[in-house]
Amino acid sequence: MNSFGKIFKLSIFGESHGKFVGITIDGCPSGVELCNGDFTEDLLRRKSGRVGTTTRKELDIPEIISGVYKNYTTGTPITIIFKNSDTKSSDYNFRNTPRPGHADFTGNKKYFSYNDDRGGGHFSGRLTVGLVAAGVIAKKIVSFVKISAKLVEAGGNNNIEEALNKAIENNNSIGGIISCQAMGIPVGWGEPFFDSMESLISHIIFAIPGIKAIEFGNGFAAASLNGSENNDVFIDDKGKTKSNNSGGISGGISNGNNLFFKVAVKPTSSISIKQRTFDFAQNKITDLEIKGRHDVCIAIRAVPVVEAALAIVLADLFLQRKTQIV
Amino acid sequence: MNSFGKIFKLSIFGESHGKFVGITIDGCPSGVELCNGDFTEDLLRRKSGRVGTTTRKELDIPEIISGVYKNYTTGTPITIIFKNSDTKSSDYNFRNTPRPGHADFTGNKKYFSYNDDRGGGHFSGRLTVGLVAAGVIAKKIVSFVKISAKLVEAGGNNNIEEALNKAIENNNSIGGIISCQAMGIPVGWGEPFFDSMESLISHIIFAIPGIKAIEFGNGFAAASLNGSENNDVFIDDKGKTKSNNSGGISGGISNGNNLFFKVAVKPTSSISIKQRTFDFAQNKITDLEIKGRHDVCIAIRAVPVVEAALAIVLADLFLQRKTQIV
Amino acid sequence: MNSFGKIFKLSIFGESHGKFVGITIDGCPSGVELCNGDFTEDLLRRKSGRVGTTTRKELDIPEIISGVYKNYTTGTPITIIFKNSDTKSSDYNFRNTPRPGHADFTGNKKYFSYNDDRGGGHFSGRLTVGLVAAGVIAKKIVSFVKISAKLVEAGGNNNIEEALNKAIENNNSIGGIISCQAMGIPVGWGEPFFDSMESLISHIIFAIPGIKAIEFGNGFAAASLNGSENNDVFIDDKGKTKSNNSGGISGGISNGNNLFFKVAVKPTSSISIKQRTFDFAQNKITDLEIKGRHDVCIAIRAVPVVEAALAIVLADLFLQRKTQIV
Amino acid sequence: MNSFGKIFKLSIFGESHGKFVGITIDGCPSGVELCNGDFTEDLLRRKSGRVGTTTRKELDIPEIISGVYKNYTTGTPITIIFKNSDTKSSDYNFRNTPRPGHADFTGNKKYFSYNDDRGGGHFSGRLTVGLVAAGVIAKKIVSFVKISAKLVEAGGNNNIEEALNKAIENNNSIGGIISCQAMGIPVGWGEPFFDSMESLISHIIFAIPGIKAIEFGNGFAAASLNGSENNDVFIDDKGKTKSNNSGGISGGISNGNNLFFKVAVKPTSSISIKQRTFDFAQNKITDLEIKGRHDVCIAIRAVPVVEAALAIVLADLFLQRKTQIV
Repeated sequence: MNSFGKIFKLSIFGESHGKFVGITIDGCPSGVELCNGDFTEDLLRRKSGRVGTTTRKELDIPEIISGVYKNYTTGTPITIIFKNSDTKSSDYNFRNTPRPGHADFTGNKKYFSYNDDRGGGHFSGRLTVGLVAAGVIAKKIVSFVKISAKLVEAGGNNNIEEALNKAIENNNSIGGIISCQAMGIPVGWGEPFFDSMESLISHIIFAIPGIKAIEFGNGFAAASLNGSENNDVFIDDKGKTKSNNSGGISGGISNGNNLFFKVAVKPTSSISIKQRTFDFAQNKITDLEIKGRHDVCIAIRAVPVVEAALAIVLADLFLQRKTQIV
Repeated sequence: MNSFGKIFKLSIFGESHGKFVGITIDGCPSGVELCNGDFTEDLLRRKSGRVGTTTRKELDIPEIISGVYKNYTTGTPITIIFKNSDTKSSDYNFRNTPRPGHADFTGNKKYFSYNDDRGGGHFSGRLTVGLVAAGVIAKKIVSFVKISAKLVEAGGNNNIEEALNKAIENNNSIGGIISCQAMGIPVGWGEPFFDSMESLISHIIFAIPGIKAIEFGNGFAAASLNGSENNDVFIDDKGKTKSNNSGGISGGISNGNNLFFKVAVKPTSSISIKQRTFDFAQNKITDLEIKGRHDVCIAIRAVPVVEAALAIVLADLFLQRKTQIV
Repeated sequence: MNSFGKIFKLSIFGESHGKFVGITIDGCPSGVELCNGDFTEDLLRRKSGRVGTTTRKELDIPEIISGVYKNYTTGTPITIIFKNSDTKSSDYNFRNTPRPGHADFTGNKKYFSYNDDRGGGHFSGRLTVGLVAAGVIAKKIVSFVKISAKLVEAGGNNNIEEALNKAIENNNSIGGIISCQAMGIPVGWGEPFFDSMESLISHIIFAIPGIKAIEFGNGFAAASLNGSENNDVFIDDKGKTKSNNSGGISGGISNGNNLFFKVAVKPTSSISIKQRTFDFAQNKITDLEIKGRHDVCIAIRAVPVVEAALAIVLADLFLQRKTQIV
Repeated sequence: MNSFGKIFKLSIFGESHGKFVGITIDGCPSGVELCNGDFTEDLLRRKSGRVGTTTRKELDIPEIISGVYKNYTTGTPITIIFKNSDTKSSDYNFRNTPRPGHADFTGNKKYFSYNDDRGGGHFSGRLTVGLVAAGVIAKKIVSFVKISAKLVEAGGNNNIEEALNKAIENNNSIGGIISCQAMGIPVGWGEPFFDSMESLISHIIFAIPGIKAIEFGNGFAAASLNGSENNDVFIDDKGKTKSNNSGGISGGISNGNNLFFKVAVKPTSSISIKQRTFDFAQNKITDLEIKGRHDVCIAIRAVPVVEAALAIVLADLFLQRKTQIV
């Protein structure tokens, strides 16, 4: 199902080429100051227009249709919708010849002949616009935490611009690595076992289309270390540690050090180079040329989405934490 | 909260040195044949006793106290408890001098002075015995899927025995990498966005103590590839692809190819080498020597736990899938 | 929180005088035929216009903004919104002088100064338009069940028209009793304990503004009977019983006889007769005259809402039931 | 599924003649003082032994197996189990000749041949012992609220002892009416729509076996009144009203007046008078004589269960309320 969260709870809806995409945020406390302008910065960071992004131009104007009154959240569900305006459904006809790497095939199997496959339908990165909007509100709730994500690699390369230009030249796409950090999380957030911070963060992070890996702290590198190397030694009465191999999480619970994780974003599946695929109507292998308009590197626009996803988890944990202190 | 799942739903409880640890499985269909002997194999794989594992010896005898009648699940909640017998709480006194890398510090902050810190309390790997038991039932529900996990690296080394012996010699601990595969999952399981297969699997996998990273398919490597290299090309009418970089998941949905992921397990935090830590009573840095009994490499015993975790997600998705076809 | 259901899951949003009210339905299977015309009949039954209803005239045109493609549900979340057009917020100024019987006072306390109290805000019966829309889809999913509710009493009187006319004459309002029946529910739906059919039905029924009582089968009358009088005797191999005091539910589970329950709807709180109330600004008792436009008997328009509420529970139970058969 | 609650969350398990029945309480804050003696009073009130109750004698000794340490809740899941000792399964053989009014028939249909029907299995009132235990903890969390339920009618009679004696004489059973009140609930608890206080309370109340009706405030009587009669007029700045027809709830939210509701408990289905039923093996109507041991009036022992149920909802709402204030 398409919902996430315990207290600060999201429901996402919409299709890439439907009338609107949107999100409902339930459980947001009343009294959070909020106007349309608050969304501008993060929505802009997610927007296309820069080198390596699609030529589809969406206005991305948030329309708040409930839950906000006189510039404050009321405490009732907040629904925000975004009109889809720049759609070219004619570019999409992959029902019989699914695009490699994309969700055309699985969408058609999951939803049978009823799948709305225009522009990727419900599987589109377009829906992350709602996630970013929810993240803006979440960030206000945990305004004492400083969250920042950045693209640290593209195409296996730290010189990102160069990698992008090369991919554009080759009509190809590239993946990337995003790192994300949060400073100021109090000790004691998260739950042991099923709702560990790693569990919750990875759950929402893997909701972002195209993400295939995550590591917290030193992650995969920890597997090669000895305990004496990997253990973070406490150096003060606040729980600060000398190293931060844990990425700020011990036993699933925030430990007061900076939260830190990295995610891998795969290269965009849609490329304009000719590819082979299977033609399910003709029952044979065939050639496929994808038209449409696509990002060369979706990792670029995923950066604010990763931040939003983390903020959403933190807002929920902040509110949950209040219930544990009587 | 300590529950997981939508239909096949788990609630876990217990402390390392409490009377019992256990699990309740709600939503298991009636008619699954089940006797105590069914648990033997997987519980044995999780048990200590081999090189690199702790000397704490638990009998791990599952006591089914509800939901099973005449060797079949009835359809009502199944509760299974395991007695804790071999506990030495006297070895544990880390309230003021928390063990580096462990949840002593975060547990004390989260639960205040009420934290049951004997043997790691609720944060202990001991609780995974219940997860393995639930996994046994889950595997029966999706018996048409073949799940297998294995330890592929320990201490950064493929020669695992050697790495273990060296760590034992040095009174140290080592991490490891577990790979897990599932064959036979039908196309169309999982949900777009918040309940993508990657979201659900990572959620429960990060509930296993000590896991700090996960990658699906080629994972982090995908970030360095071009789309033309990373895309998996369809080669037949079942959705089989030439390569399997996706790890069997496209758009969050199973695509009919083998599900494949890897996880990193950190080295055991408890080591017998002297370490530094902060003494919260004396307000100064101090030396710490950990007695207790601990695994040298928790990754060894985590292998069947990873399998169980995956089986639990698959059983839930199998049951959920039934609701989508009218 | 404003969501309901396990598989067929609703989230409701909106305020009486906001831009839109609406509902998101998650977990609806793909392939349910659906067009705007399907909503007409039930929305019309809920609409104002008849004797005893408000003069506020809403168009109640459902705008489906996601989850439906080429007249079939796709399987993704369905969001339906309804524009609020005929609003007169100037009639509402009860922040300091709350209307007796209404949610002005509790809304202001719950949401503090942030409460959107225009037209009752989120507490308005206006929101039930979304519930009726969800009910239309639910009825299609359980099309083999015949659901029918009717108003059986108004103002304590079986001659409903007479009671309405008298209330109108007196500038007063009246309550009513709605009975609801469903034929064709298979045996075996519902859960023991927390999700008994009575639990689920009453949960959603009490979400409808103004309902204060519910009884299943012979309800309160059962308390005065002997077991020998109240027990329903089985008379055939389908589980049919001679009497139906159980209202079609035994042990929380549907028993194959007609489901039957009655609810009490209180008289509309807003009446044009002068009332006393407390003036929280002046800190004294004062007189209150309510302008606005209101139903004389909300029970009239609640009839299709009760049907929708029941249909929603049944659709969810129908889908849940599929998960119990392996 | 057998769970209830958002923050203070219960999972119930067990069968009447299984090894144990029990409950897990997740989300209870740490630091609630708790010892076995705390359960004595309410368990005793639920216990058999008085006139009109069964001769089955269970010790009802709570065994806390997790979540409590040194007489305080730790904050982790609390599991409490109760041994079933006085079981006579031989008295139960109703698979082919289901008892009228009981869940034998529906249980067999829901769970097929796998139903554990000994002593009513999972459908037994025996399981409410766990509910009462959870209620004891809940009452401690909302210790500032005074909750009290009482039996106000049995067999349609206010002279309860007389009604009981007459039923015993006749080998029959009788129903009853329980009223429940809570004083001291702050204004602002509950949610509009799906989680109205009436919704939540009725949901858990109908989980108690045998309850068939509930009314809040003046309930069914409200349906016969005019708005001018039914509206509760505010008389002070705390929201106190002259009358309390609302039963302390307006718009689904607590309004500061006493919470008040009544429930109808049906007469025990199991009576020793000969009854007719259908014989599903022989496919004909037959006579049935029930042996076993049964309460004459289950309403007697349901009184502390109703209190516990209310306390559980209130504890959850109290904890939820903390998340709405930032």
